[in-house]
Amino acid sequence: MFFGVDIGGTNAKVGMVDGRGRVVDHDTVKTGLYQSPADLVLTLAYTILRLAKVNAAKVEGIGICCPNACALDGTVENAANLKFKEKFSLLRLFRNYFPEIPVAVDNDANAATIGEQVYGKAKGLRDFLFVTLGTGVGGGVVCDGKLVYGLHAMAGEVGHIVVEPGGRPCGCGRRGCLERYVAAWGALETYKEICAENGEAPKAGSFRAFADLALGGDRLALRTYEEMGRHLGLFLANLACVTAPTHIFLFGGVARVGEILLEPVRRHFNENLLCCYKNGIRIELSGLMSSDADAAILGASALVRARLAGC
Amino acid sequence: MFFGVDIGGTNAKVGMVDGRGRVVDHDTVKTGLYQSPADLVLTLAYTILRLAKVNAAKVEGIGICCPNACALDGTVENAANLKFKEKFSLLRLFRNYFPEIPVAVDNDANAATIGEQVYGKAKGLRDFLFVTLGTGVGGGVVCDGKLVYGLHAMAGEVGHIVVEPGGRPCGCGRRGCLERYVAAWGALETYKEICAENGEAPKAGSFRAFADLALGGDRLALRTYEEMGRHLGLFLANLACVTAPTHIFLFGGVARVGEILLEPVRRHFNENLLCCYKNGIRIELSGLMSSDADAAILGASALVRARLAGC
Repeated sequence: MFFGVDIGGTNAKVGMVDGRGRVVDHDTVKTGLYQSPADLVLTLAYTILRLAKVNAAKVEGIGICCPNACALDGTVENAANLKFKEKFSLLRLFRNYFPEIPVAVDNDANAATIGEQVYGKAKGLRDFLFVTLGTGVGGGVVCDGKLVYGLHAMAGEVGHIVVEPGGRPCGCGRRGCLERYVAAWGALETYKEICAENGEAPKAGSFRAFADLALGGDRLALRTYEEMGRHLGLFLANLACVTAPTHIFLFGGVARVGEILLEPVRRHFNENLLCCYKNGIRIELSGLMSSDADAAILGASALVRARLAGC
Repeated sequence: MFFGVDIGGTNAKVGMVDGRGRVVDHDTVKTGLYQSPADLVLTLAYTILRLAKVNAAKVEGIGICCPNACALDGTVENAANLKFKEKFSLLRLFRNYFPEIPVAVDNDANAATIGEQVYGKAKGLRDFLFVTLGTGVGGGVVCDGKLVYGLHAMAGEVGHIVVEPGGRPCGCGRRGCLERYVAAWGALETYKEICAENGEAPKAGSFRAFADLALGGDRLALRTYEEMGRHLGLFLANLACVTAPTHIFLFGGVARVGEILLEPVRRHFNENLLCCYKNGIRIELSGLMSSDADAAILGASALVRARLAGC
């Protein structure tokens, strides 16, 4: 059995995944209760051992995903949402407890990308892009079957590509980044702008409520998704010119509305796509979206599975 | 000895390259004189054999670069500037004459990228970008030591990334592509616009004359390069987010002015770069620029050398 650990600001999820990509058992740890990375990892290690024991399973590998984790050395520094801002080695802390078991660490977007490759729709694909649309926008770039890491293992930071020079201020200190327009907060901001332009009061104050409005057919919420589709479609058409992927997978809470996002994305993508790629690139929802709660666990466990397979 | 063949609209250059990347001998064939690809290749094959015989050398491999050539199957279709618009297999035509010698075919930008890797400044680099700035803009993307090919081997078409939505019309049928601002014709257009804004008559009617003006310190020509640096700097900062390269090499006639282009490019690049990449990415002129006339021959010969080395 492979174990996947997804460390988030509120919860850390630990799951046991079988060879067919099913989460056989899982448990949750409240991240906020722990005063140090060592304390948190002690509990996570204990949880892994307990799940293995209860299920009479062998721990064959452990994959851990965490915001800002670096795949090269397994460290985490200044992670969004975590209490621990100092740099620490997640890899070393886990290896203390599991010295003889393969352990792999990576950030969320990379883990989800490898999850798509190992368990999702990207099985056997050589060239694809994976874009996570959540509270931020992240990505994974796979070329010739391998996830691209690059400098400091920081490839795929596509949420910070500037799509509107001089546009909305971003948390990164720059302006006009993609995620300010198509991540959850950006979507809500666009929705409120569109409501103001139409002299209507916003009917949603959270992203979830806004997405529900769109699913219910609300005119201005749908117009917001059209606008997001315009940004994403042109952006993805540009991105296609870099690595020429055959597939682009969209993942995360913002994509959960399905065709409401996909239709305008595909339309603007095809309108803007360079002719040599026409009809060659498919845009689809991630195959991990159906088992939403498990996607992060699958992604994390896929990290170590892929490493053992030499991907 | 490796042979590099660079097929252009006016001339095809054939060069013999030694193991240290020196063009030992070369010859030129007038492309326009030939009525069919087969006639042209017959003469090119004869030229290779003649150069080998004159120099008492063995033909160890032949690399050919040609606009629109596809590395996957060695075919060329609808090549810019060539008389032959129909699809033909450059690889098969060459293999007729050299059935037992390795032959590799690719487009110009990919050949130059591999040339940089084999003979230039990118020796030993794992992650870099190569951008050609000539009559068009092309590119090569190297991740983990390998050139990225992707769908239809069409990765690296960075000249057609839209940098000004709704901007200048491009030959590809879309608007606002990068090459309309930073390739030779685009540069000249910007120069003329800047002259008009300043109520001055343009002092140059060709790109070469314009570049000479900049080298001579002409105020409006330099302002044009500043504007090109703004476009390229932001563009490259965005591109960095995709594959996180450690180096970016600029190549081609537009880059021949050296620091006049590099200084504004680096300045705008650093201003726009996401903080996690700061101080980690170097922008330099291609190492093939010094031996300008030979760069294409080196690139073409590097194709087959890299293939034999398993790159």
